Amino acid sequence: MTIRKHVVIVGGGFGGLSAAKALAKAAVRVTLVDRSNHHLFQPLLYQVAMAGLSPAEIAAPLREILRRQENVTVLLDEVVGIDVAGKRLSLREGSGLEYDYLIVGSGARTNYFGHDDWATHAPGLKDLDDAVEIRRRVLLAFEAAEREDDELRRRELLTFIVIGGGPTGVELAGAIAELAAFVLNRDFRRIRSDMTRVLLLEGGPRILASFDASLSEEAERALRKMGVEVRTGALVTSIDARGLVIGEQDDVPSERVAASTVLWGAGVRASALVAALGVTCDRMGRAIVAQDCSLPGHAEVFVIGDAACFIPAGKDQPLPGVSPTAMQQGRFVARQIVRSVDGQPREEFAYVDKGSMATIGRKRAVVEVGKLRLTGLLAWIIWLAVHIFYLIDFRNRLAVMLQWAWSYVTYKRGARLITGGRLEPGAPATTLDVPPT
Amino acid sequence: MTIRKHVVIVGGGFGGLSAAKALAKAAVRVTLVDRSNHHLFQPLLYQVAMAGLSPAEIAAPLREILRRQENVTVLLDEVVGIDVAGKRLSLREGSGLEYDYLIVGSGARTNYFGHDDWATHAPGLKDLDDAVEIRRRVLLAFEAAEREDDELRRRELLTFIVIGGGPTGVELAGAIAELAAFVLNRDFRRIRSDMTRVLLLEGGPRILASFDASLSEEAERALRKMGVEVRTGALVTSIDARGLVIGEQDDVPSERVAASTVLWGAGVRASALVAALGVTCDRMGRAIVAQDCSLPGHAEVFVIGDAACFIPAGKDQPLPGVSPTAMQQGRFVARQIVRSVDGQPREEFAYVDKGSMATIGRKRAVVEVGKLRLTGLLAWIIWLAVHIFYLIDFRNRLAVMLQWAWSYVTYKRGARLITGGRLEPGAPATTLDVPPT
Repeated sequence: MTIRKHVVIVGGGFGGLSAAKALAKAAVRVTLVDRSNHHLFQPLLYQVAMAGLSPAEIAAPLREILRRQENVTVLLDEVVGIDVAGKRLSLREGSGLEYDYLIVGSGARTNYFGHDDWATHAPGLKDLDDAVEIRRRVLLAFEAAEREDDELRRRELLTFIVIGGGPTGVELAGAIAELAAFVLNRDFRRIRSDMTRVLLLEGGPRILASFDASLSEEAERALRKMGVEVRTGALVTSIDARGLVIGEQDDVPSERVAASTVLWGAGVRASALVAALGVTCDRMGRAIVAQDCSLPGHAEVFVIGDAACFIPAGKDQPLPGVSPTAMQQGRFVARQIVRSVDGQPREEFAYVDKGSMATIGRKRAVVEVGKLRLTGLLAWIIWLAVHIFYLIDFRNRLAVMLQWAWSYVTYKRGARLITGGRLEPGAPATTLDVPPT
Repeated sequence: MTIRKHVVIVGGGFGGLSAAKALAKAAVRVTLVDRSNHHLFQPLLYQVAMAGLSPAEIAAPLREILRRQENVTVLLDEVVGIDVAGKRLSLREGSGLEYDYLIVGSGARTNYFGHDDWATHAPGLKDLDDAVEIRRRVLLAFEAAEREDDELRRRELLTFIVIGGGPTGVELAGAIAELAAFVLNRDFRRIRSDMTRVLLLEGGPRILASFDASLSEEAERALRKMGVEVRTGALVTSIDARGLVIGEQDDVPSERVAASTVLWGAGVRASALVAALGVTCDRMGRAIVAQDCSLPGHAEVFVIGDAACFIPAGKDQPLPGVSPTAMQQGRFVARQIVRSVDGQPREEFAYVDKGSMATIGRKRAVVEVGKLRLTGLLAWIIWLAVHIFYLIDFRNRLAVMLQWAWSYVTYKRGARLITGGRLEPGAPATTLDVPPT
């Protein structure tokens, strides 16, 4: 009997899960550690934030996904330290874990670029708790506006600002505009959708900067048509509970915008765990990895997905932080581990660009695959098909399709629930309220 | 033009919602105030707590339900005071509300019988936040047990105590036993379902005391078969984070049971708002109402459902706190308001007993309608049919049916999500975590 090598995977996102699955037939034992118990289909997270889908429709328990794979143990815990020399992880709850091979796929967190105090006023969107919190804030702002008699205050409650013109920001801004258009006139008595103001603020010269300029223009045009004010070159200098300040620039003086809901989609950085690897990181905190995705000097440690900065040989730009990168790297490093166990040399990772896409609203999206650029309904149908196809299991796929078909026909949004105790839109929620006596 | 009378309804539960709907064609304007934005199908709440259904499957936004009814305005707010003499309500957020007729359907809250400090250690099950919190605790206890090396501590983590042998307690205890049986052996590597211990504690001589004794026996037998230890005559004298103490009784000395999860299903009391009416209440805090469901001395104020104690003429027992009581009273008081507006005299409320039922697990329930008593599979099918039929709208009904059919065939539980930041099963959740930097 041979003692099998132990592979520890940190994170059950697209990268970690792909690696775990790719090791199904390998002669190794695998431990997957995650601080949450579910795999999250992040590309649809904004739909939960905007009450289009329910949390269970875009998440599946990791244990459920991996239950038939007998060489995998799932551990709900948080990795708090990595001893690369001793090949050992320390955990928040359990005792430590020793590994022969380590795959770090701990993903990214919201990045406030040094303004962490903004987190309270401008939540980011990285996990289900974030999404439910954003849903709560947006829906409570509608409710508070319906109660409000003061014109100015109502305007403030119905002003929604999204910071960051990347795919997440564009999706959020479009979805708020749609939510307001569909729901307000129908369900409320005193507020109307034309009272809402949705602002999308981008610091750079154009939104969707990673796409071709023609698609940025098309997206901006589509957003404006939906009533979203798009402001480029707009740098935010302060955020508080009542709104934010857009900084002075060129000849334009600084401007205060009153808004009770501000959402942050302006950037991410690698999880803090990456720093524990003691490796050189880029300015987003991502570990700079070798061509086989391993740490320089530690061939047994791999960093993949949003936690890694992989610069393909001969290029100067790192790979984009999207799910295909993570999934391809996950499968690649699994194969390298099998090769190492078998005494074979490492390969070099070759990224296959699957293109990128962003949805703007019902029936509008932009898609870019190599030289091919699509917009409008066709792009949206492709976006929809790809996203439903990649949803984790059949049940979720069926549920999401039905949910969308239903809301498409009826314009109903069943997921429009406010949970978490308080009634004020700005205050953070508490989940457990001690019952009154 | 006549000025229409203003009817204010407090609470969008079964009673308040039935009243609002019954006033659709009446020449009155209606304001429905609730502190949550959704109607909750309470009979299936335990399914959310046990990860069988998702919150959105048993809740529907009140605005959605009432959007076509133009004489109704929905207000998300909390009533904090009632001035019965001045016919005026004070609200937590908005300015006050004046009424011509008031319907109080504010429901019940968990009752700890003077031990409110137990709420932290033994959450009750009254709203979606409670259900999600219970789901989090139960699933985290499994996860912590999987991590645990110490035998005694693991046993404590896998011990689940439900206090209260009414329908809620029976449903919760049965559902925990099933969840453990289906999920543990399949999804976990180190813990097995035979390591779990589920205790159902009832202070009185038998569980399901409101049912016929033969059904209590049948339910107890079924629960034992599922592995639930049923203890009657067991009075809890203290609860803390590590378990509870069952008090000394007769010749039995007091006994400490170590358990990291304790759930409270032992009783409810009317919402604190009822006391603000300044009326005589029973020991459960419910307003004692006249035969037309109105307050003695205030014919324009009605109290219905769990907030009311209605003793039918010639009887000595109040009506049971179940949804048919609330719905029938809601429709009845709506009719009385129309009659009053038309100058007609009041009628007396006549309760139609629709029977009662409780489910014990998959394929087992007890049903009692008059002299008819059913148990086992047939009772469960009736339970299922009635519950799906009464679900609020078609979308939810369809979703719940599909969800159940799916989990029936596959034994999968897609709703098995842990949300809310912390990893320790005992600690209350926080919804918004400031992202690490």
